[in-house]
Amino acid sequence: MILPLLAALALTLTTAKLGGWASSRLGQPVVLGKLLAGLLLGPSILNVFALPYFDQAHVVGALREFGELGVIFLMFSAGLEIQIGDLTKAGRPALLAGVLGVLAPIALGVAGAMPLGYDLNQAIFLGLVMSATSVSISAQTLMELGRLRSREGLALLGAAVVDDVLAIGALAVFVALGLDEGGGPASLVGIFARMLLFLAGAYGLGSWLLPRALRWVEGRRLPISEPVVSLVIIVVLVFAWASEVVGGVAAITGAFIAGVALSAAPSKERIERGIHALAFAFFVPIFLVSIGLQADARALSVGDLGLVAVTCVIAIVSKVLGAGGGARLGGLAWPEALRVGVGMISRGEVGLIVASVGVNNGLLDASGFTAVVLMVLVTTLVTPPLLRLAFPQKESGHA
Amino acid sequence: MILPLLAALALTLTTAKLGGWASSRLGQPVVLGKLLAGLLLGPSILNVFALPYFDQAHVVGALREFGELGVIFLMFSAGLEIQIGDLTKAGRPALLAGVLGVLAPIALGVAGAMPLGYDLNQAIFLGLVMSATSVSISAQTLMELGRLRSREGLALLGAAVVDDVLAIGALAVFVALGLDEGGGPASLVGIFARMLLFLAGAYGLGSWLLPRALRWVEGRRLPISEPVVSLVIIVVLVFAWASEVVGGVAAITGAFIAGVALSAAPSKERIERGIHALAFAFFVPIFLVSIGLQADARALSVGDLGLVAVTCVIAIVSKVLGAGGGARLGGLAWPEALRVGVGMISRGEVGLIVASVGVNNGLLDASGFTAVVLMVLVTTLVTPPLLRLAFPQKESGHA
Repeated sequence: MILPLLAALALTLTTAKLGGWASSRLGQPVVLGKLLAGLLLGPSILNVFALPYFDQAHVVGALREFGELGVIFLMFSAGLEIQIGDLTKAGRPALLAGVLGVLAPIALGVAGAMPLGYDLNQAIFLGLVMSATSVSISAQTLMELGRLRSREGLALLGAAVVDDVLAIGALAVFVALGLDEGGGPASLVGIFARMLLFLAGAYGLGSWLLPRALRWVEGRRLPISEPVVSLVIIVVLVFAWASEVVGGVAAITGAFIAGVALSAAPSKERIERGIHALAFAFFVPIFLVSIGLQADARALSVGDLGLVAVTCVIAIVSKVLGAGGGARLGGLAWPEALRVGVGMISRGEVGLIVASVGVNNGLLDASGFTAVVLMVLVTTLVTPPLLRLAFPQKESGHA
Repeated sequence: MILPLLAALALTLTTAKLGGWASSRLGQPVVLGKLLAGLLLGPSILNVFALPYFDQAHVVGALREFGELGVIFLMFSAGLEIQIGDLTKAGRPALLAGVLGVLAPIALGVAGAMPLGYDLNQAIFLGLVMSATSVSISAQTLMELGRLRSREGLALLGAAVVDDVLAIGALAVFVALGLDEGGGPASLVGIFARMLLFLAGAYGLGSWLLPRALRWVEGRRLPISEPVVSLVIIVVLVFAWASEVVGGVAAITGAFIAGVALSAAPSKERIERGIHALAFAFFVPIFLVSIGLQADARALSVGDLGLVAVTCVIAIVSKVLGAGGGARLGGLAWPEALRVGVGMISRGEVGLIVASVGVNNGLLDASGFTAVVLMVLVTTLVTPPLLRLAFPQKESGHA
């Protein structure tokens, strides 16, 4: 029963590492190779897990769960590299990049979808689907390039938090208005207040309590194996869980906040070493591959190609203009602002989840859904090489 | 979808660590507390995952899979502490403890089951179910006590490999004879030859190839994150998978062999640090809890208690006498031999799997199956405290 999963894990990790290696040899970020490794193994090309040896639904589901843990650990690792002062210093460009980076896709989405025959409601919905950035791929690429703590890297991370609040908030607004659940403006204020309160509370509590808890655990010489790493894993899981359940923001945002809250902890290096092995040797590669595993390029019919192309172009252009323009207005130089815009291109599971809700509510038709799925895939794939292009070359560190 | 799993993982890890801590405060091995944490969370007591928030089957299944990876990493870690020379030095006591440790439960099982009304076939089958030791709990306890590389620790590990080959081999013999699949003695020779060839080949290939592969990976400064730990994880997965599929021995035996093959590698310390965090901060605690999660003491009816008691007593006594006596015959002193016998008490998933096959073939009735399940639980729970009792006290290291 466990044997096919062992084989699938070994195959996934091997392909991911080989893909990353090949990608790096071709001058591309390692992330790209791992994403392509997933496409190669998945239904788009080889479809290996459809072999009778594997129980496809089970194996792909398990890899997806490992991957979800992977993206949580990835964003925690990114947070661990960031001090809160870094983020507040990047406050103005981050805020403006976040706000305009959400508004531009909605505006351009409406402008692009109405001529294609979508009604206003449907067009706004398509815009909303395009509004939520998923910063994990960019964070991984910037870590790889050694640029996570650059001015634009910090603005990008701050903008991603703002983006998360706004994009999910805007969706909640839309749903509240559309379903007429009676809340009106008061409930909208409530939604945003809840998000901001959670973020402030999680950071405040985390940065006060966690270093103290770690010092206590370390000082007591507890008869438990790996007490520091164990505690940190539990904390990351709880923050990720609570951010969706308590705060209404994405799980990865909670994991990122936990990382920032621990970035000044005295045992940071030990945390980093323990989590790094767990994350980058196991869970994160599985996350990157599982993205490709879930895409099926073969399901695309030729008739959809126009819509797909329009969606992808709008998704890319709107983020670069919106988030990049916001960062420029916030005080970054043009090249830096461009990098922020490029870093915000990649979309992720939020868009997919929203889109599948839309299909059930009739806000999105089947070809619209296919277009969204491919938009997520394309924006994810183009982000690492575009980011690499946007940054002046230097020898990269680890990957 | 992922949120209940995050909550379940956080709850599992927290309870495991608290249980381990409490257990250690009471002078017991940490392992015992983690096993009891699983009983507490599982259907025997609180049954938390039956709460509507969790999808019980899914969560318990996922924890079980994480746990199966945990026991594989655990046995790899145990192997990593052992040089092949240690095992061959312990060859005679290990061999005799392994052989007599398999024969005694079969003999005593037959002697105990026949008077209870089982026919010869059924009685032999019950003996076979009791014959397979699962050494992971003892390995973890000995690591905790800092005694894995003692004379008796090494004899125990060697005996466990012998036990695995013989117990699974004996079962294969029984099935081959019973089902009259036409093989006869020739196919039995084939089964054992396959096991021994695999073990020798895996160790030979592993100890020749793996250190070279690691040196190559380290020397090349590959642009891949965590290249050493990644390669090792892949190797462990492949060895575990191949040992069942190619060799017909248990997956944990393959993982153990991979560890022994790497124990002399120059990058051993780096391997240990990476795998240790992955294993002991995440996967192994989940393994220990998942054992308790799968047991349901409430399902036990009063009428079964006699059979349960007889089964447990025979399971414990036969291993202590058989394996302990074998170790004594092999040249260990009585106290050392006793520790080997005690360390072989705990049974695991092999017994459960065999038992469930037996239920389907009419070789075991429902109360016999319940007795086997409880025997596995009881032998697992008594082994850590008995091992601790059998060893002279000293300050324990990590846990």
